[in-house]
Amino acid sequence: MTAYQDLLKYLQETDHLFSAGRLLQWDQETYMPSGGEATRAEVLSTLAKMMHSRATSAQLADLAGQAQALAASGDETRQIELVHRDLERARKVPSRLVEEMTRATSLAQQTWSRAKKDRDFKAFQPFLETVVKLKREEGSLLAPVGGTAYDGLLSDYERGMNTAEWTTLFDELEAELPALVSEIVNQQKPTNQRLDGVSGLKGPFPKDAQLEVCRKLAAALGYDFQRGRLDVSAHPFSETVHAGDSRITTRLDESELTGSVYSTLHETGHALYEQGLPEDLAGTPLGIYCSMSVHESQSRLWENLVGRSEAFWQEQWSVLQSAFPCFASVSQADWLAHSHRVAPTFVRTESDEATYNLHVLIRFRLEKALVLGDLEVADLPGAWNEAYQKMLGITPPHDGLGCLQDVHWSAGLFGYFPTYTLGNLLSTQLYHAAEKAGSTSDRPTLLNWLRQNIHTKARRFETPELILQATGEKPTAKYFLVHLRKRYLG
Amino acid sequence: MTAYQDLLKYLQETDHLFSAGRLLQWDQETYMPSGGEATRAEVLSTLAKMMHSRATSAQLADLAGQAQALAASGDETRQIELVHRDLERARKVPSRLVEEMTRATSLAQQTWSRAKKDRDFKAFQPFLETVVKLKREEGSLLAPVGGTAYDGLLSDYERGMNTAEWTTLFDELEAELPALVSEIVNQQKPTNQRLDGVSGLKGPFPKDAQLEVCRKLAAALGYDFQRGRLDVSAHPFSETVHAGDSRITTRLDESELTGSVYSTLHETGHALYEQGLPEDLAGTPLGIYCSMSVHESQSRLWENLVGRSEAFWQEQWSVLQSAFPCFASVSQADWLAHSHRVAPTFVRTESDEATYNLHVLIRFRLEKALVLGDLEVADLPGAWNEAYQKMLGITPPHDGLGCLQDVHWSAGLFGYFPTYTLGNLLSTQLYHAAEKAGSTSDRPTLLNWLRQNIHTKARRFETPELILQATGEKPTAKYFLVHLRKRYLG
Repeated sequence: MTAYQDLLKYLQETDHLFSAGRLLQWDQETYMPSGGEATRAEVLSTLAKMMHSRATSAQLADLAGQAQALAASGDETRQIELVHRDLERARKVPSRLVEEMTRATSLAQQTWSRAKKDRDFKAFQPFLETVVKLKREEGSLLAPVGGTAYDGLLSDYERGMNTAEWTTLFDELEAELPALVSEIVNQQKPTNQRLDGVSGLKGPFPKDAQLEVCRKLAAALGYDFQRGRLDVSAHPFSETVHAGDSRITTRLDESELTGSVYSTLHETGHALYEQGLPEDLAGTPLGIYCSMSVHESQSRLWENLVGRSEAFWQEQWSVLQSAFPCFASVSQADWLAHSHRVAPTFVRTESDEATYNLHVLIRFRLEKALVLGDLEVADLPGAWNEAYQKMLGITPPHDGLGCLQDVHWSAGLFGYFPTYTLGNLLSTQLYHAAEKAGSTSDRPTLLNWLRQNIHTKARRFETPELILQATGEKPTAKYFLVHLRKRYLG
Repeated sequence: MTAYQDLLKYLQETDHLFSAGRLLQWDQETYMPSGGEATRAEVLSTLAKMMHSRATSAQLADLAGQAQALAASGDETRQIELVHRDLERARKVPSRLVEEMTRATSLAQQTWSRAKKDRDFKAFQPFLETVVKLKREEGSLLAPVGGTAYDGLLSDYERGMNTAEWTTLFDELEAELPALVSEIVNQQKPTNQRLDGVSGLKGPFPKDAQLEVCRKLAAALGYDFQRGRLDVSAHPFSETVHAGDSRITTRLDESELTGSVYSTLHETGHALYEQGLPEDLAGTPLGIYCSMSVHESQSRLWENLVGRSEAFWQEQWSVLQSAFPCFASVSQADWLAHSHRVAPTFVRTESDEATYNLHVLIRFRLEKALVLGDLEVADLPGAWNEAYQKMLGITPPHDGLGCLQDVHWSAGLFGYFPTYTLGNLLSTQLYHAAEKAGSTSDRPTLLNWLRQNIHTKARRFETPELILQATGEKPTAKYFLVHLRKRYLG
């Protein structure tokens, strides 16, 4: 074996531990009996400690050093660069903190799930306080020179954009979006009032039939069920256990269909990216997705650009019609208009593509304040409700529809939310480029374009470079605003 | 922390790795998409290597040594004794062999699953050959002084009984059982002929309803669904992921109900044992079950002694009646007689309690011959069919109903089958003791007796000592033969 092959073997074996951790996580959200909660947290904590130990070992540094001297190709050089970068990042965080974080987030996630159902923020508060305390510590350790703890956390999800740049981006969106939303809401008023009277849109949508529909739609986008599966969880997610096993989940509500349908298309978009990554690089730092933002661009592209288009429902309408008797009185145009409804709502994951980035903006500012110590966890519900009133003109009736709605913070994902918005911008930019290349005529052609320009590139480039190569431009918001105006005001 | 607590922490963290491995295994048998097979085998192989490395480390030996000098109670002494024993056992097998075995058995299991469906022994043969080759090597390493490779493999499942003793036991059963079976079969002839005409016994039993029935019956035995779950797999099994999470599976056949019902009761028996182990010892060598035989005694006790009794169906009859319309024309007496059918059949897991040990006897002799080199894998189907003809008077029509029916050999479980028979003997011995103690009047009382006399004892004693304490006698076959005569010829 060459030095590079030795390095690969070490990396892949480390990833095997991560595979076990990812399955334990997936299982915790889907099938684990409640009695397993406490021990599951211990198991995940031990595994995280082992992974951290392998990811920061002198052995890995040695292997990377030996391989570096003999690197024979651009891929090998990049692989080794990523190893060194990940090594440096991992070594900044002591294993004690990694272990505490894993235990804290496992318990916080379990508590969150119950607290959300019970609308009981107080039950969740001490667990979130522990997570925030640990994230402040982690952020400080990861912060670049002169940067804040929040800069440190942001760098885990999108390299090269700091707090100030994200703040500017959101300020710019705030300058355009609320007015645009108002204009759309006003224009849609008569249609939406009429839709309120279409009783078929309110179900019932039996859960089994809904799940079957979700499976058909995922397959229609090109999701390979031989290498994945679709299950049910409180909060939809996609999870790659390992090569050949990229799973998605959805949530089911008998009185509302768009939730399961569009969250399925969303998670399918994520999974199509995972299923399109080069198998020969699986389990190595070079073999994974480019960044969270690019991942989100894939989910949004399939959910919004493809999934909410007239052409898509022209094809898939019969799937809904045959599954739900209540749709006998619903026209395809009604369903499309229903799918295009723009309205201020409480829940981010159910929100439309126009208001969505206002939800993210609120979270960005709140989590920044939490990490920087400008907001205490105890004051989160109040601050949340105030922000919703200011930005969307509505106040959540309880915390289950307010600050308890997302799993992210309980899982320690601070700095993650902003990548959703960049992902939204990139989805429109990429779709526009694919259109210009004549590759949006059908879904296999579009998927192929994404495979060539995004998926098979894996982690060879940073986000701006990848997007530049794929679209001819650096990341920009312009195609997103053009898309909104065209779809909703055109 | 005391030296003993340090030791416990090390042991529990090792068990956390095993927990991950057990979930990966459970998932492989239940929900994993087929595309994940190859990588799953790699993941399991890496984890096995890591577990083996921890289980044989100098650090563990040191910790055990330090704790031994300070052992403060009988439990601590026994815990440390078991650590030393497991350490010694693990160190006999090099990690290279452990890794090869894990990969080989993972691939063999996956191939077996398809080969069984396709009735294609040739497809499975090379994979089984690899497993047998590796097991011969492992058995030789584990063999006691003067013992054979098969002695070595047997010692993993039941300490203190060698090939010669098992051979004697099976020879003794062979001397009584075939004649007893013939007598029962003759006596049952008219009843069974009449039952063949009861069409309701042939279903249909819709799978969803069947699964629901299985869940109700498991709960009726006392299975705690807050700390477990029931799923579907090709071959039923029970698996404890970790404390608070003891799962079972069943298999479903729309035309045959006894398969799912009694395999569920069987796996529930295993899981009741697991759920009754002392939580404060969880994840340590002292905190697990006594032996495979004792485990099997629990599954058989609930399946056969409780589950096939008139009293049980007196209570649970309505569960079947309300679930299956086809049971409108079936009487409770018919169902009980159907559950008591004794007949030579091809499939061990579907066989009755009278012929069951003849199935085990065949496997015992064949696997002994495979391990000792007296039989080649290529000749297994022929030898299997010959043995069935001789012992049960029937020849399997294809290998799917023949030597491909069990998962065990593909999983490397050689030396395991004989414990099934000892478990059967012990189930009747234990039930007889509970009856004498007045503890079989209802199921909670019986469960409580087992909790006190078996479950909470965990691994404090070897099988003969545990059984002596619980029943006043060493393990014996007499209650088993008494039970068969009473139930079937009484």
